[in-house]
Amino acid sequence: MNLTEMGKHAKQAAIELGVADSKLKNKALKFMADALLENKDKIIEANKIDLEDGKKKALSGALMDRLTLNDDRIKGMADSLVQISEFDEPVGKVLEKKTLYNGLKLRKVSTPIGVICVIYESRPNVTSDVVGLCLKSGNVTILKGGSEAINSNRTISKLLVEAAKQAGLPEQVIHFIDSTDRSLVNELLKMNEYIDLVIPRGGDGLIKFVSENSTIPVIKHHKGICHTFVDASANLEKAVKICINAKCQRPGVCNAIETLLVHEKIAGDFLPNMAEEFKKNNVKIKGCDKTQKIIDVEPATEEDWSTEYLDLIISIKVVKNVDEAISFINKYSTGHSDAILTNNKKNADKFTAMVDSSSVYVNTSTRFTDGGEFGLGAEIGISTQKLHARGPMGANELTSYKFIVQGDGQIRE
Amino acid sequence: MNLTEMGKHAKQAAIELGVADSKLKNKALKFMADALLENKDKIIEANKIDLEDGKKKALSGALMDRLTLNDDRIKGMADSLVQISEFDEPVGKVLEKKTLYNGLKLRKVSTPIGVICVIYESRPNVTSDVVGLCLKSGNVTILKGGSEAINSNRTISKLLVEAAKQAGLPEQVIHFIDSTDRSLVNELLKMNEYIDLVIPRGGDGLIKFVSENSTIPVIKHHKGICHTFVDASANLEKAVKICINAKCQRPGVCNAIETLLVHEKIAGDFLPNMAEEFKKNNVKIKGCDKTQKIIDVEPATEEDWSTEYLDLIISIKVVKNVDEAISFINKYSTGHSDAILTNNKKNADKFTAMVDSSSVYVNTSTRFTDGGEFGLGAEIGISTQKLHARGPMGANELTSYKFIVQGDGQIRE
Repeated sequence: MNLTEMGKHAKQAAIELGVADSKLKNKALKFMADALLENKDKIIEANKIDLEDGKKKALSGALMDRLTLNDDRIKGMADSLVQISEFDEPVGKVLEKKTLYNGLKLRKVSTPIGVICVIYESRPNVTSDVVGLCLKSGNVTILKGGSEAINSNRTISKLLVEAAKQAGLPEQVIHFIDSTDRSLVNELLKMNEYIDLVIPRGGDGLIKFVSENSTIPVIKHHKGICHTFVDASANLEKAVKICINAKCQRPGVCNAIETLLVHEKIAGDFLPNMAEEFKKNNVKIKGCDKTQKIIDVEPATEEDWSTEYLDLIISIKVVKNVDEAISFINKYSTGHSDAILTNNKKNADKFTAMVDSSSVYVNTSTRFTDGGEFGLGAEIGISTQKLHARGPMGANELTSYKFIVQGDGQIRE
Repeated sequence: MNLTEMGKHAKQAAIELGVADSKLKNKALKFMADALLENKDKIIEANKIDLEDGKKKALSGALMDRLTLNDDRIKGMADSLVQISEFDEPVGKVLEKKTLYNGLKLRKVSTPIGVICVIYESRPNVTSDVVGLCLKSGNVTILKGGSEAINSNRTISKLLVEAAKQAGLPEQVIHFIDSTDRSLVNELLKMNEYIDLVIPRGGDGLIKFVSENSTIPVIKHHKGICHTFVDASANLEKAVKICINAKCQRPGVCNAIETLLVHEKIAGDFLPNMAEEFKKNNVKIKGCDKTQKIIDVEPATEEDWSTEYLDLIISIKVVKNVDEAISFINKYSTGHSDAILTNNKKNADKFTAMVDSSSVYVNTSTRFTDGGEFGLGAEIGISTQKLHARGPMGANELTSYKFIVQGDGQIRE
């Protein structure tokens, strides 16, 4: 596979796709949705091969579940594409407009980023989500999926390319790296001339590898060590429900909480009820020294505060006040999602201002950090970094901008 | 020098500075301006040591000029700080606001980035520009200037730290790396835990080194290989003036043009006049085969199209039409500033839409790409990349954002 040739084609196609009009792009998205639905048997067949390989490799139940496609999931993929087609056009928006002192007319206009390479693992539905959002925002996609899903990904991406062509777009707007050769990833990460952005989606190892080896800008979608702080003035009944939701509704995802911080004034009242509810939900509890004096739990170690359990385990720490909670969170949080439960407005404002995370919550569950919940439609991921885009990223977050300046012979004095 | 200790202090100070109110930050900026003016003799004295060292090292005239501080330049530095203090507050702006389906109130609010490390060369006035813009946008600055200006930079940064303290800010909001040890740069570039963004400002070597070695996100302010395309319908009289301005008004800067593209239909009319004006302005001309048939010039080689002369040299290429001009620019431009001179609106629109550069111009000089000219006040540089910020970057471009979500017990179903 000649990646340089592919890069050249991608870069050329990016110029054309960058000026493609909304109708054409939306038509392609709808054709893609139709193609997935019409060919769902073909997709499920390819997926079966991946699932059989997965069985042979003895993949875990969770991984096998993520890998599995069925009628419902394929319908979900198609629905997402249709939904994306209905969004406002993200490219060509005039973000700013002014006439300069010398009569020059300046407009700041949103543009695609160019060529985006997404390196992902496991879930084959990422293939169509990524292509949909990139296409909508005028970006060419290079897809490098995991070897465990290569048959599913190949089939899906072929259908998407075919649909794009039928709609009238150049087929070079989507590139699927049809190889399980891992050394290709190394090569991709150095193709600064052809690729504008790399987005890794997957486990810790993948994210780390990509960030450390890419010479191209990377937007990380990293793990979530999320906290909820129950302040002295919190409504304790609501607090129990919110914490159960944040921990248990789907423990294996990044916006579930791993650590609960509790104000010392209400720890004696709150923790026994909370612990009972956690136990009902099969949550294993670990706690700091003070927690251990109130409820009967295993000790939490320094390592616990930095661990993303992704499981029904929670670590609890009793803190003196909102300041200690903020410091603790800024030390151990991965900057994903953190919440305060309080009826003290001053503390809520302090917390939301000073906690350095992409999404900060007052009196609700951290589980809401999600492109769909935030009204972005699909999401390309949840950025845990502060450059370019932070938090859930949709099509708008896949744009850059340029300045267009109209003159009439002005020169600089 | 213990960089890890410094990093911890910087990160802690960033949380405090992030919530500092506008009045306090603006007071600090004004104190800084006063401190520079009141101590200009001290600054000039320190600068003399650098200049003497520079003489011993036989620095070029251009470098010596960039290194030199005098009353006027110090006044310029102070004026910039005052101007920055008068800008609107960049932090805490509500960028988006909506109520979600479940009653959650979501606000997207601008925040500082955190800790910004600026690695720069030569011009000591960068010290106060950078500190001013970072402070305004609530960011802690780590300054690593070049060894050639260390005495000037040390004196200036001491005055700035002192002024920040007097205004009531923690002194840890500005860190000056008082060392010429280059290995410290390597160490800084790996301090992901404490530094959020690295901005290199300087020559090609520095930018390359930083981009290739930093594990922290980098915003590059790279070289400018800028073009002007004279279309068939251009007003040729204005075109001569614009090209002279773009090439000659200040040839050593990034937004000066290096290559002139000329439509073949008007090349015979235009080039002789243009060449005459270039010669009057001591510009050496190189040209493609077709150019050589019209005017008597040296041949331009493939290397010329990729060279940033930063000097009174221009390379000229005759092209068939606007499409060839666009392809040529997208191949050789560094994405900085490119212009079309035309009276054909369709060609102008095509050019501005398809040329993939931060600033694209119609009927004016590329020399206008500048934070001051674009109305941003001072600039931290001109980004030549597409992630986060593109083109001239002021205080607003040094911010990130977070989502603040206010609930009343909502949980995710």
